[in-house]
Amino acid sequence: MTTADTTTAPVPTQSTYQNRVADYWNAEENPVNVELGKIDDLYHHHYGIGEADWSVLDEPDPARRRTRITAELHRLEQAQADLLAGHLGPLAPTDRVFDAGCGRGGGSVVAHLRYGCHADGVTISRKQADFANEQARKRSISDKVRYHHRNMLDTGFRTGAYAASWNNESTMYVELDLLFAEHARLLRRGGRYVTVTGCYNDTYGRASREVSLINSHYICDIHPRSAYFRAMAANRLVPVHVQDLTDATIPYWELRKQAEHLVTGIEDTFLTAYRNGSFQYLLIVADRV
Amino acid sequence: MTTADTTTAPVPTQSTYQNRVADYWNAEENPVNVELGKIDDLYHHHYGIGEADWSVLDEPDPARRRTRITAELHRLEQAQADLLAGHLGPLAPTDRVFDAGCGRGGGSVVAHLRYGCHADGVTISRKQADFANEQARKRSISDKVRYHHRNMLDTGFRTGAYAASWNNESTMYVELDLLFAEHARLLRRGGRYVTVTGCYNDTYGRASREVSLINSHYICDIHPRSAYFRAMAANRLVPVHVQDLTDATIPYWELRKQAEHLVTGIEDTFLTAYRNGSFQYLLIVADRV
Amino acid sequence: MTTADTTTAPVPTQSTYQNRVADYWNAEENPVNVELGKIDDLYHHHYGIGEADWSVLDEPDPARRRTRITAELHRLEQAQADLLAGHLGPLAPTDRVFDAGCGRGGGSVVAHLRYGCHADGVTISRKQADFANEQARKRSISDKVRYHHRNMLDTGFRTGAYAASWNNESTMYVELDLLFAEHARLLRRGGRYVTVTGCYNDTYGRASREVSLINSHYICDIHPRSAYFRAMAANRLVPVHVQDLTDATIPYWELRKQAEHLVTGIEDTFLTAYRNGSFQYLLIVADRV
Amino acid sequence: MTTADTTTAPVPTQSTYQNRVADYWNAEENPVNVELGKIDDLYHHHYGIGEADWSVLDEPDPARRRTRITAELHRLEQAQADLLAGHLGPLAPTDRVFDAGCGRGGGSVVAHLRYGCHADGVTISRKQADFANEQARKRSISDKVRYHHRNMLDTGFRTGAYAASWNNESTMYVELDLLFAEHARLLRRGGRYVTVTGCYNDTYGRASREVSLINSHYICDIHPRSAYFRAMAANRLVPVHVQDLTDATIPYWELRKQAEHLVTGIEDTFLTAYRNGSFQYLLIVADRV
Amino acid sequence: MTTADTTTAPVPTQSTYQNRVADYWNAEENPVNVELGKIDDLYHHHYGIGEADWSVLDEPDPARRRTRITAELHRLEQAQADLLAGHLGPLAPTDRVFDAGCGRGGGSVVAHLRYGCHADGVTISRKQADFANEQARKRSISDKVRYHHRNMLDTGFRTGAYAASWNNESTMYVELDLLFAEHARLLRRGGRYVTVTGCYNDTYGRASREVSLINSHYICDIHPRSAYFRAMAANRLVPVHVQDLTDATIPYWELRKQAEHLVTGIEDTFLTAYRNGSFQYLLIVADRV
Amino acid sequence: MTTADTTTAPVPTQSTYQNRVADYWNAEENPVNVELGKIDDLYHHHYGIGEADWSVLDEPDPARRRTRITAELHRLEQAQADLLAGHLGPLAPTDRVFDAGCGRGGGSVVAHLRYGCHADGVTISRKQADFANEQARKRSISDKVRYHHRNMLDTGFRTGAYAASWNNESTMYVELDLLFAEHARLLRRGGRYVTVTGCYNDTYGRASREVSLINSHYICDIHPRSAYFRAMAANRLVPVHVQDLTDATIPYWELRKQAEHLVTGIEDTFLTAYRNGSFQYLLIVADRV
Repeated sequence: MTTADTTTAPVPTQSTYQNRVADYWNAEENPVNVELGKIDDLYHHHYGIGEADWSVLDEPDPARRRTRITAELHRLEQAQADLLAGHLGPLAPTDRVFDAGCGRGGGSVVAHLRYGCHADGVTISRKQADFANEQARKRSISDKVRYHHRNMLDTGFRTGAYAASWNNESTMYVELDLLFAEHARLLRRGGRYVTVTGCYNDTYGRASREVSLINSHYICDIHPRSAYFRAMAANRLVPVHVQDLTDATIPYWELRKQAEHLVTGIEDTFLTAYRNGSFQYLLIVADRV
Repeated sequence: MTTADTTTAPVPTQSTYQNRVADYWNAEENPVNVELGKIDDLYHHHYGIGEADWSVLDEPDPARRRTRITAELHRLEQAQADLLAGHLGPLAPTDRVFDAGCGRGGGSVVAHLRYGCHADGVTISRKQADFANEQARKRSISDKVRYHHRNMLDTGFRTGAYAASWNNESTMYVELDLLFAEHARLLRRGGRYVTVTGCYNDTYGRASREVSLINSHYICDIHPRSAYFRAMAANRLVPVHVQDLTDATIPYWELRKQAEHLVTGIEDTFLTAYRNGSFQYLLIVADRV
Repeated sequence: MTTADTTTAPVPTQSTYQNRVADYWNAEENPVNVELGKIDDLYHHHYGIGEADWSVLDEPDPARRRTRITAELHRLEQAQADLLAGHLGPLAPTDRVFDAGCGRGGGSVVAHLRYGCHADGVTISRKQADFANEQARKRSISDKVRYHHRNMLDTGFRTGAYAASWNNESTMYVELDLLFAEHARLLRRGGRYVTVTGCYNDTYGRASREVSLINSHYICDIHPRSAYFRAMAANRLVPVHVQDLTDATIPYWELRKQAEHLVTGIEDTFLTAYRNGSFQYLLIVADRV
Repeated sequence: MTTADTTTAPVPTQSTYQNRVADYWNAEENPVNVELGKIDDLYHHHYGIGEADWSVLDEPDPARRRTRITAELHRLEQAQADLLAGHLGPLAPTDRVFDAGCGRGGGSVVAHLRYGCHADGVTISRKQADFANEQARKRSISDKVRYHHRNMLDTGFRTGAYAASWNNESTMYVELDLLFAEHARLLRRGGRYVTVTGCYNDTYGRASREVSLINSHYICDIHPRSAYFRAMAANRLVPVHVQDLTDATIPYWELRKQAEHLVTGIEDTFLTAYRNGSFQYLLIVADRV
Repeated sequence: MTTADTTTAPVPTQSTYQNRVADYWNAEENPVNVELGKIDDLYHHHYGIGEADWSVLDEPDPARRRTRITAELHRLEQAQADLLAGHLGPLAPTDRVFDAGCGRGGGSVVAHLRYGCHADGVTISRKQADFANEQARKRSISDKVRYHHRNMLDTGFRTGAYAASWNNESTMYVELDLLFAEHARLLRRGGRYVTVTGCYNDTYGRASREVSLINSHYICDIHPRSAYFRAMAANRLVPVHVQDLTDATIPYWELRKQAEHLVTGIEDTFLTAYRNGSFQYLLIVADRV
Repeated sequence: MTTADTTTAPVPTQSTYQNRVADYWNAEENPVNVELGKIDDLYHHHYGIGEADWSVLDEPDPARRRTRITAELHRLEQAQADLLAGHLGPLAPTDRVFDAGCGRGGGSVVAHLRYGCHADGVTISRKQADFANEQARKRSISDKVRYHHRNMLDTGFRTGAYAASWNNESTMYVELDLLFAEHARLLRRGGRYVTVTGCYNDTYGRASREVSLINSHYICDIHPRSAYFRAMAANRLVPVHVQDLTDATIPYWELRKQAEHLVTGIEDTFLTAYRNGSFQYLLIVADRV
């Protein structure tokens, strides 16, 4: 494997804020992330989409009920990962993709399995990077899928080396202008960028109380929807498909809310934020021109 | 009817180019626009979307064949108008909408019929404005739907008076920054803007030969896709839904190409442009923030 | 009194967010605002600065202890108001000042008492505007000090009519570009703008958890420090004095934290935010050029 | 000869559009380019300026008439090349110049003959680059004049290495911001940039039908005049001389139109475009500051 | 005469700087301005261009020598005025032109005599405006040529009312962005703007000592050449003709330097500045698009 | 000592202007700079702040009077250097600072003595760099404090290598956008930038006559105050402390004016400029974010 890499790896974190976020994810062991991943070793850190099979809630056996809910939530988050991955292509096995904010690595595996392509995932959590590389080794794909303990704003990867890249719910930790500048640098002309993200809705106004509660929960800083399009316009990323996934993600949250073994306490805040119009779950697909 | 209007109507055309475009549309009598409109008095000047009923081509009786093809093409363009109108709402009957580049007026009627709202259409063709007002009178909706012989870049209408506005294949005649500044001025905070447009694809590169041929055919100046998002970002219009309609419009063009009584000669150029990737048929839905 | 006013008052609120903020302040009756104001009928909604007289905590008599703490906190917030007002001048009695986000009106009274000038305060809370006007009547200064139930982003006041203007802890509810555009429009050439504000510190990184908790507490959206200077630069407001008041405001919070009759529960969050470097209390004085 | 070159030559074409343009020029064998060049082995791909010797049309002998017309047209295009080259200087033999979009290489030879300087020409047509290098070898100047099969937007040449650079009718194939960024990078401080170009006239309005026909003929994308000055302003290129050559180029087109052995069919379109005010032939001379 | 005027005239000066400049011109009685104007009652405040008749220096009779030098200098400044005026047209007698920084009014008279058009001159010197209006009355053209004691940055004139406008050596007193915004507002679409100005040469570097001496002499603030093109690009003024008049103005200064009765003491500074490359005398002709 | 340096040192001067400035400083031997420095071998090229000990003027012995005045002025300029240096920290001995426009080197020594840090000073005067390095050798700190004959706009130093940087009265020689881009590049995230500068006051208007006289005296080009904040905003430098030192520097100038052995002739111009409001002495402290 030839890595699209520079000799000197840049420093993963540069600010107190980034250290605090890294600490959060180094310590994080939420069942909703860990238990779901165990099902098929695809560890995601994002939410799900699509209609839920509500019958899992009626399951009388408690243990089996928990298992079925867990599986159903994983199915929904896998549907989200598939939707995102589907917009990356077409890609050839010789192509290389960049997974910005890769978490425990599920997204890069999904992309590799679909296209056979090389993948570089980046996270500022050393623990996540190690975990993800271990998973890749177990799958025997570590020659093509590799995770790096780096800062997605300053990867040190080679200019123009990537055919596609994405952020799956990781843009709210960074300045968008710096982020999209880095994506634009890494992508080849005509390359594809995809993001799924929660954004606050400028039509509603400024950040609602619920949005701020989500920010405090995850130590993140959710952007207004307008910020995405402004920063993309400034960085040669041109949208070709934009889809409001808010309605599609509500079943995931309704189901998760009833999963006593998985809830983190933020579920009602999300549901209120989506329903009062202050928050949106958005897919943006763009081309690097 | 209270008109959202200033006392002094601004000058409809200000440049030689605008006069030449106005002359074109004052003279235009293409059957593909006139004949299709006669079916139900909804006169559109845009293309269609959706799968076609190809059986109309097999109709053995020549006159009936022509009639059925005409009806089928009208059905497809009506589907496009409905898609656009569906994104304007919800709207109340007291709301006011702005139809920028209204042509013979079909779009404003569609919006009015769907929402009961007031509509102001604007065109630099005196003949089109007169024709459209005459249609509104025949339908007895001229108290709510009115057409103006004006310049969409400088309407003289009242700031913040509109709940929604759109351009249906009319953005390629104007500078986008001036256009979106006027939409942003006219729309109230939270108002909705929709456009369906042909744009050239920056991923392909600069304007292809086919795009230039379309420009010369219609005396227009097709923008790159990137220009829309850059100008929206600069004018407080934030996309919420973007859809590539290229595949959906190809059946319309394939059918029209075989309609000897309706072809204008530009059909193959459109099909080539769509298929070689240099041209796209795009829907953008945005909010005025 | 000639009001620098247009005939048609603009709409005070335009978004759901603004309505929610207005509801908050219409309902707000925090003792820390109301009780302190009762002392001398100067009702402030901002924090204090300067060294505290800690002996008030040692007061053995409970009622007297409460009174003395209240008075001491009021003295500190008055010191802040005086610092701000001192940077507005020199001003003549014929000059007019604009108090953006005036709350219950204390700041405008302070400015009037110091300079004899006319003052227009603006708040989106109807209750606050009424309360403040009632106070002005009681002081018999309602011919020179007037409060308006309006939106500070769109006041409808006359261009160039103001010699000075300010925001005292009210910028975090609005978009800075819209705000500074309105101040720049209202101020005459050479006019003075002053703000005291909490901002998050870009040197730390993005918004910390504490900053988000403050946002959720007040339904506000605290800006990074950089945003102030960028928006001022774009709106012809040129800083001439900038002062970090973080250290100076900590005694106020330490004292308030121990005032059981006044605490709102957000005190520790503020102290942590200031101390971990993620949050700053800043004074910016700028000239309209 | 020391080449101002990097070790790794960048990819000449990056988009479908560029490939199509390269194909066009690889295939092009228009007599108006080839025959004129044969006269003195200065192969130009641009138009001419100055008053024509109309007596060549009265030549009775058909072969001689063709020869004289060919020579006269070449004289006019040589006059244009000389005008451009005259604005590059003064230059020393040790200076290096960059010919962006060099075609069959005539311009670089003209500059070298005038100043003795080094020249690097760039074209995305492999055939043109080979042809031009062959000509340089024949003239025994290949130690100082060299042609490269590269993309003028991304030459890989050394920063600050050039004393002067130009585009002679080649800017209409590229994005001006990318182009001028590359010129600004390559030119030393105080270096000189010159372009002769057809541009559409914003005073007229948008691109006229004739401009679009020219675009479709050459697969190019003619910019409005305003775009040149905006992109230069953003890239530290400051105009010092601007000249409208429209009237000066009309004799060339009138004469060429009557040269049956040389016409390409686009002649009348050019003449109409120049005369209806929608198109201009412009010289811009600018300094790199 | 219908004046393109608002009912309320804006304040001519708004800053201390402007008052100081106004004081300068209210007090100014330099023979080089007054004596030259007396010849034919065309009072200019700008420099001259073109080759001088040096024989005037050989005139033996002292009085006659002075008279002839005065006349020759006036001929050169008249040549400059004619060059500028020639670029304003074509204009019809019904057209209106705006002379920004009109001084004692010569330029507006020149434009009126050439085109028969209406002219509005603006100066912040009350004395100059009065003098110029008195001259117009003497010529019996005060129904078409009028001078106003106003600020050229905020004229209060009607939007789009002017077919042409200019600054003849008056841009160095104002911010270019404010100036060109006002010209762009006043000019109709397609209108013509012309300026002749001294600018410092960014190719040389920052302002030279000589440029600063000129600034201190006239209390002005000479812009770099780049500033003109950047501010025009931002205000829809597109250059169509740019000419470096530096060489053409040197004879004027050489002659003036030897005119003992006319020198102001700044002559050598100008000559040095022009010759060391730090200063340029520039004509810019632009279209309002 | 590891130098934060590239292998190839860039060219110190690139324009005629820079050469002229370098010549000025190579030739400069003003007693006010040289004599003051001799006192303690801290050679400054900037002005002083703070209240003066006016008793030095009453000293009856002429030689002793001169000595005491010299010492007092040096004390005031040292106070300024200390104020600036105090805002650079805290810094560790392993940190590196960049002194842009270091003159004879006093500032870097002050910073090193205070923090023990490494310092790189840059000046375009070869003589100054040599002098300063010689001083460092005498102090035996040349392993930590080094001066370079370079251009502060293009130092060739390593990206992100500096914890702090400053300009002490040297910004008026350069374009601020280029300068701040270089500081932003050199500073690590969170690094500190400080400048003390004379700026002209936009509130007053454009550059006054006195400002231009100062420009001509020093061959510099004083910026308006607004330019600093605009250029910082564009280059990720966020002010945290801004202080108007105008009043604090007047004693220095009043004293210097009476020091016959030290005056350069510009003293009254400075005093007038400060007092008529057209000129300011400003401290700006900013963070690199």
